[in-house]
Amino acid sequence: MNIEILKKNKTFDGNTVIYEHQSEITKTPMKFSASLPKSEKIDSAIIWLSGLTCTEENFILKSGVQNYLQNTNTMIICPDTSPRGLELKNEHESYDFGSGAGFYLNATTEGYKDHYKMYDYISIELISILKDYFKVDRFSISGHSMGGHGALVLGLREKDLFNSVSAFSPISNPMNCPWGEKAFKGYLIDSNDAKKYGNTRSDSILIDQGLDDEFYPDQLLTKNLETAATEANQKLIVNYREGYDHSFFFLSTFIEDHIKFHLEHLKN
Amino acid sequence: MNIEILKKNKTFDGNTVIYEHQSEITKTPMKFSASLPKSEKIDSAIIWLSGLTCTEENFILKSGVQNYLQNTNTMIICPDTSPRGLELKNEHESYDFGSGAGFYLNATTEGYKDHYKMYDYISIELISILKDYFKVDRFSISGHSMGGHGALVLGLREKDLFNSVSAFSPISNPMNCPWGEKAFKGYLIDSNDAKKYGNTRSDSILIDQGLDDEFYPDQLLTKNLETAATEANQKLIVNYREGYDHSFFFLSTFIEDHIKFHLEHLKN
Repeated sequence: MNIEILKKNKTFDGNTVIYEHQSEITKTPMKFSASLPKSEKIDSAIIWLSGLTCTEENFILKSGVQNYLQNTNTMIICPDTSPRGLELKNEHESYDFGSGAGFYLNATTEGYKDHYKMYDYISIELISILKDYFKVDRFSISGHSMGGHGALVLGLREKDLFNSVSAFSPISNPMNCPWGEKAFKGYLIDSNDAKKYGNTRSDSILIDQGLDDEFYPDQLLTKNLETAATEANQKLIVNYREGYDHSFFFLSTFIEDHIKFHLEHLKN
Repeated sequence: MNIEILKKNKTFDGNTVIYEHQSEITKTPMKFSASLPKSEKIDSAIIWLSGLTCTEENFILKSGVQNYLQNTNTMIICPDTSPRGLELKNEHESYDFGSGAGFYLNATTEGYKDHYKMYDYISIELISILKDYFKVDRFSISGHSMGGHGALVLGLREKDLFNSVSAFSPISNPMNCPWGEKAFKGYLIDSNDAKKYGNTRSDSILIDQGLDDEFYPDQLLTKNLETAATEANQKLIVNYREGYDHSFFFLSTFIEDHIKFHLEHLKN
């Protein structure tokens, strides 16, 4: 496993690090960041999936998350939001498809199917890296917007892999919103592949949603998730937050709550 | 006083806001940001001066400062680092002179002397805005790198204006480092104008300096400040921090300490 450190900054007695490796799944170099607390017995990890246009850096620069992990044995790891360095058809023409917008799925369309396999990248390759390179064996997953969608899909379909699942402002029903429709049309030959969350979890999923979010409700459709969860007997904790929008200022305000939620589930 | 709100994001129950106004001193539009806690009786302000290449946004996006002001009556205000929208000679050719690099002084050279008056902009116009628009009457000052230099100079020359002064990784002796030499040569006809800090304060100045800072000691010359302070009987608290660099990760780690320091001095 050939993982290179590109940048390392001491932060709250631990380190914030940017890594790069050659992915066997996306067949491209992939970057990810990690915030590693000072602890010498880090044993668990939260996977953070970022939103449209982000790279592996935005979350660790703007969320303030390092503060809340500093006295724990839990790291956070943030993959990039798509493969990079390719020149696929339509890949770099819009902010909501292609580079920076991988949607955490396995593409089946021509060209994309060879590289845009972010679902497998997270659930197989990143998990291997966490186990073999970082020596951690318990995982939770969270994310924002497109990454909130990713966290819900991965957390439900791979339910035994993750101790807990949470999301900020997730794209909750992508089959029925413009972002999701565009992405599924471009990435999937049969968009039924994206239709179902698959399983239910016995634990509650935590969601925070700002009520002044510029993409709420049209792109996010949080209520549809609530309805689907009720029908499927999936417990949800949905906090609607008066006055908050879709930005990192919203994330930074409530990230401590989500970290505490995951730490509680990662104890054993 | 015609101040326009460009952007407002709810953050930790308060607001993070970007403002713009037409400056009488720089004769240009100027932007500044503010983090306003929820309190309805905000009575004091910390002025934050940013480093080279920054705008009014970097600090409020990356420092996590909102967390530490949320239950106080103190706001933080961050001006841009230079006038913008001009086309002066050599103004946009390098990162360390001209736009994004105003050095918090009053320029005397041709062209620059009409606009690059950041010292007066902070000490007169921004203070007026704080008094008249935000209705606060007690001030402290801090900053990073070039902004640490600004905080030291403003905090010593205008010693009665500020309750307390602190700095991260300040350019401590700009007369003798490449950044300062270049700036003073470009902005000042007589660089003796920049020679002296002027006064001493009866209170201690707080400084944090990372020992893995890529600009330490050559550009920062912290020890020269210590020597000068000893000679002038100025009390300094200098914390050298093992392993920390010049980045926002360093700031975000120790900003809480500086906020507490200023809050203590802003009490009365």
